[in-house]
Amino acid sequence: MHEFEIIAEIFAPLAGEGSFGLKDDAALIAPHPGFDLVVTTDAIAEGTDFFAFDPAATIARKALRVNLSDLAAKGAAPISYLLNIALPPSITSQWLRDFAQGLKDDQAQFGVSLLGGDTARTDGPLSIAVTAFGFVPQGKMVRRAGARPGDAIYVTGTIGDSGGGLAIFRREKHALDEAQRTYLIDRYRLPQPPLRFGAALAAHATASIDVSDGLVADLGHVAAASGVGMIIDAAAIPRSAALRALWDDDPAAIVRAATAGDDYQVAFTAADHNAVMTAARDAAVTVTRIGQVETGKGVRLLLNGQQLAVQTSGYSHF
Amino acid sequence: MHEFEIIAEIFAPLAGEGSFGLKDDAALIAPHPGFDLVVTTDAIAEGTDFFAFDPAATIARKALRVNLSDLAAKGAAPISYLLNIALPPSITSQWLRDFAQGLKDDQAQFGVSLLGGDTARTDGPLSIAVTAFGFVPQGKMVRRAGARPGDAIYVTGTIGDSGGGLAIFRREKHALDEAQRTYLIDRYRLPQPPLRFGAALAAHATASIDVSDGLVADLGHVAAASGVGMIIDAAAIPRSAALRALWDDDPAAIVRAATAGDDYQVAFTAADHNAVMTAARDAAVTVTRIGQVETGKGVRLLLNGQQLAVQTSGYSHF
Repeated sequence: MHEFEIIAEIFAPLAGEGSFGLKDDAALIAPHPGFDLVVTTDAIAEGTDFFAFDPAATIARKALRVNLSDLAAKGAAPISYLLNIALPPSITSQWLRDFAQGLKDDQAQFGVSLLGGDTARTDGPLSIAVTAFGFVPQGKMVRRAGARPGDAIYVTGTIGDSGGGLAIFRREKHALDEAQRTYLIDRYRLPQPPLRFGAALAAHATASIDVSDGLVADLGHVAAASGVGMIIDAAAIPRSAALRALWDDDPAAIVRAATAGDDYQVAFTAADHNAVMTAARDAAVTVTRIGQVETGKGVRLLLNGQQLAVQTSGYSHF
Repeated sequence: MHEFEIIAEIFAPLAGEGSFGLKDDAALIAPHPGFDLVVTTDAIAEGTDFFAFDPAATIARKALRVNLSDLAAKGAAPISYLLNIALPPSITSQWLRDFAQGLKDDQAQFGVSLLGGDTARTDGPLSIAVTAFGFVPQGKMVRRAGARPGDAIYVTGTIGDSGGGLAIFRREKHALDEAQRTYLIDRYRLPQPPLRFGAALAAHATASIDVSDGLVADLGHVAAASGVGMIIDAAAIPRSAALRALWDDDPAAIVRAATAGDDYQVAFTAADHNAVMTAARDAAVTVTRIGQVETGKGVRLLLNGQQLAVQTSGYSHF
């Protein structure tokens, strides 16, 4: 398909308010009085964030969701996104249609629309970058800096599932049943960022981050930005039954989950425990208290009072 | 260099308002009452928009400018940009420093700052996408649709220079002197979008587009979006002395300039000729009247009353 056909036939049906149907040189975001616009951009890479054999629809949805998780972490409600995509010659029209269907499904689920983008051909690997936009009440964006000694530390959802799915793709031996295997692979392909919890974070979190590099590494970013230390109760880190079945339940397994990365859940700190738990219940989001902010620096992972050695500080793109 | 080092040492010094020093998960654009936010994104590709042997600084500046030209065309004043870059193993620290210096120079020239981005490694070619943001008075973004029969058609700067520079790189024979050769190569490497004219376009243009696919093709987009036809006086298309020296001055040379693309000047339509010319003088931007909007459809290129055959409808990425 020609570039103009791809835009007109594949992507234009996804375009929403301010996009001018992808028929102009730029898009427009009208002012939303009393709100700041939050902007985030992340690319996903073949062989790391997805595999060429993954369904086109989940590749598309993951590219979008790794950005929506940033908006959720910052307390913003998503509105729209840009798509920059470079297509190798192997990409077919059917692949593009499946890719667009994935985006369409997530647009419906998360209430966003396509604002614009850029389509090109490449001799290199498939390359996908999304830039996502959301609104947060003015001055209420939740920063990494903001955690204070005495705050509790929380995380949404379960941690390590995506790393488990990736391990299965990398042919790690396991004795999972089909449902467990599918569950973990699904979490790798399709992260579940807690968008429904964004407003609660804007209201109650003192600091927040999406878990992409790994729980310990990402909390380390928050601790460094906030000038505080953190103690994490390793046993409290929420792990799924499937992940426990894959990696056992020993200290090494906990460390692995806490450093695997690619979770796209949200780790945050807050002072008002009751408000956090009430908001979690109202939003139907699983939130687990996993530790405490203290004076000092760094993140310590404790199991029954013993500090666990953390070999890696999380996934690095390099 | 590690990803975090690249961000902290190379890109953080370029970061401005709302970027949080590139130390958070997202950036923020505060509301600007009475203004719409205009968003545009374009990637540049090795072998097409730049060559690996080009200076890192001009690659950076071209990546930025091909987006700023869209903002200018839409009547917007640029404020900031995101940078998505995928680096092959051949890229050195010195290359990155030169790249950043190019951005720094253009930031000073155009009054923009780095808002955020994403840095990754790739086994493929160097890949650079920029997303640029600008403000335009609410409701005043200049669309492609809007040209009316009777409007005059204008273009800023000169047309075809970048195509001339590219032809030289592709070893086309020529008898240029060193100054002419350098001029055309500079125009290929470093387009000169008329940012100073953005406000005048918001005030006076009925439709507008940046010239990237080629003058005839881009005016064709405006004609199609506006539901009008256009007559262009081929002899009026502004061409530099260097380009005339490269391609001669015959009808084929004019057609070639008008279809070469990669100019990043602005083509627009307007009803008030005196207002356009006064604004051009005030902004110190060269603006040339090249034709007339009429009823009908399509773009016709006339030379002394004879229609020139246009073989290509401009550069396509595919």
